[in-house]
Amino acid sequence: MLKPLGDRVIVTVEEPEEQTVGGIVLASNAKEKPQTGKIVAVGAGRVTDDGKQVPLSLKEGETVLFDKYAGSEVKYEDAKYLVLHEKDIMAIVD
Amino acid sequence: MLKPLGDRVIVTVEEPEEQTVGGIVLASNAKEKPQTGKIVAVGAGRVTDDGKQVPLSLKEGETVLFDKYAGSEVKYEDAKYLVLHEKDIMAIVD
Amino acid sequence: MLKPLGDRVIVTVEEPEEQTVGGIVLASNAKEKPQTGKIVAVGAGRVTDDGKQVPLSLKEGETVLFDKYAGSEVKYEDAKYLVLHEKDIMAIVD
Amino acid sequence: MLKPLGDRVIVTVEEPEEQTVGGIVLASNAKEKPQTGKIVAVGAGRVTDDGKQVPLSLKEGETVLFDKYAGSEVKYEDAKYLVLHEKDIMAIVD
Amino acid sequence: MLKPLGDRVIVTVEEPEEQTVGGIVLASNAKEKPQTGKIVAVGAGRVTDDGKQVPLSLKEGETVLFDKYAGSEVKYEDAKYLVLHEKDIMAIVD
Amino acid sequence: MLKPLGDRVIVTVEEPEEQTVGGIVLASNAKEKPQTGKIVAVGAGRVTDDGKQVPLSLKEGETVLFDKYAGSEVKYEDAKYLVLHEKDIMAIVD
Amino acid sequence: MLKPLGDRVIVTVEEPEEQTVGGIVLASNAKEKPQTGKIVAVGAGRVTDDGKQVPLSLKEGETVLFDKYAGSEVKYEDAKYLVLHEKDIMAIVD
Repeated sequence: MLKPLGDRVIVTVEEPEEQTVGGIVLASNAKEKPQTGKIVAVGAGRVTDDGKQVPLSLKEGETVLFDKYAGSEVKYEDAKYLVLHEKDIMAIVD
Repeated sequence: MLKPLGDRVIVTVEEPEEQTVGGIVLASNAKEKPQTGKIVAVGAGRVTDDGKQVPLSLKEGETVLFDKYAGSEVKYEDAKYLVLHEKDIMAIVD
Repeated sequence: MLKPLGDRVIVTVEEPEEQTVGGIVLASNAKEKPQTGKIVAVGAGRVTDDGKQVPLSLKEGETVLFDKYAGSEVKYEDAKYLVLHEKDIMAIVD
Repeated sequence: MLKPLGDRVIVTVEEPEEQTVGGIVLASNAKEKPQTGKIVAVGAGRVTDDGKQVPLSLKEGETVLFDKYAGSEVKYEDAKYLVLHEKDIMAIVD
Repeated sequence: MLKPLGDRVIVTVEEPEEQTVGGIVLASNAKEKPQTGKIVAVGAGRVTDDGKQVPLSLKEGETVLFDKYAGSEVKYEDAKYLVLHEKDIMAIVD
Repeated sequence: MLKPLGDRVIVTVEEPEEQTVGGIVLASNAKEKPQTGKIVAVGAGRVTDDGKQVPLSLKEGETVLFDKYAGSEVKYEDAKYLVLHEKDIMAIVD
Repeated sequence: MLKPLGDRVIVTVEEPEEQTVGGIVLASNAKEKPQTGKIVAVGAGRVTDDGKQVPLSLKEGETVLFDKYAGSEVKYEDAKYLVLHEKDIMAIVD
């Protein structure tokens, strides 16, 4: 299991579906990287100078919208994840 | 529904109207991106180091003026939105 | 009406007068952008981390001197305005 | 009258005297911009996050030494002034 | 022994295993630098302006995931280590 | 007299001595600018956001070591001085 | 004697030993600058905005590991030293 640190969350990226034309698999527009994902783990929050921990407003299971190109891609046990800072999450998709 | 995080708002962008000359549709000046929009959702505000949440001064339904090129464009259920940080909003159009 | 947000003010820009030589209208030196304007609207002030609002020291009706190239130009109901942060205002012209 | 805002002062720049060689007026070394001036107006000081105003340690009438290339040149009623932030003033010339 | 300072940790880098094809040792993809390591030493934490020390949330023996290219490589008694700031650690691998 | 402002000190620069070879004066290595000087004046210290003044730990008469290329050179009554921020002073030469 | 200011320490750099091959002295790999040194002097610590001094966690006599290329080289009474900020020290070599 991956436990994110500080103000980070880990999301599973929702790959845009491939389009098939006459049996040929076409990748969707390569320029548009996926922008939504499902949160699988949430960090404990950043620690301020007073030693206080500011918890995240995000929860496991939520689908979120994040900035294109934000975050770091990691592979773990054959699955791909994206590690994002909370500030890179723009909105919750409800 | 999209729920913006932190000090973000989501606006529907008001596209400048197309001009028609002799039946030919002319795009308005491409150099001037739209600068006004209507707020459809408001974040809960940024959380300070003391754990306090500073609410936004903006409200749903307000028409706002924002910096050209500010924000991130997102598509959601076939509609286009712009996610903006409060600091990118210059004025309320009353 | 435009209501500026945070530490912003809106000014009407005083265009330098055109000079006429023998009936020919000469634009004044194009390199020198106007640097004074009259304040038409003042924001409520920035909100600090303590949730306090720091009001501006500027008032509607004051003529101010501002940094060349500062601010964002906006058009509203056929008039041109400049939206400036208080920090871009150098002095009040009394 | 020009009233500087925040931590700004306004100085009259002391132009280095022209040197005359055999009746020919020679500009002094153009690479060396004047570095001293007399303060004609002092701002009320910057306002901190607590809403406190930190007054400047500079006074009207003082001659000051400032960083080459610091400040913004303004013309006002046919006189040239330099608007400087306090931090650009290196020393008082006593 | 190396004792890291401030908010630093020292990790032993887990080199990706070499692949052998017909007896020939092949280096794994050189573009992908190792991203996990085991913590061998933890700093006492950064000291804030109040003189308080903020201890790290990481512990010796934990396996961590860190940003590619983060940290400084050091050699000590013939072993290679990576010195990382806590902020460069993305997650704990449990 | 020059009275430095804030966290500044004024030093007289100790020029490295010229070396003479067979009567010919050779400038010392031009790439190495002098790095020590004697403090002739000390500012009152920077003013914090609380309005407190933090006095400098440096005193007039001390010889100090400073970063190459740090500070601003000023001429005053035919003497050359260097105005330095306290942070540019690396050490006191005792 | 050199007394470092603020959060600085002064170290004597341990030059990597020269290797000799058949009587010929070979400089060690020039690309790898020495990374360890012995602390000969420690500053009193930085002064915070509250006027408090935050003492360093380092002590004279300790051998430290520091970032390649960090610090400023100074010569003093024919010896070479390196002046480093505490933040450039990665670890204590015990």
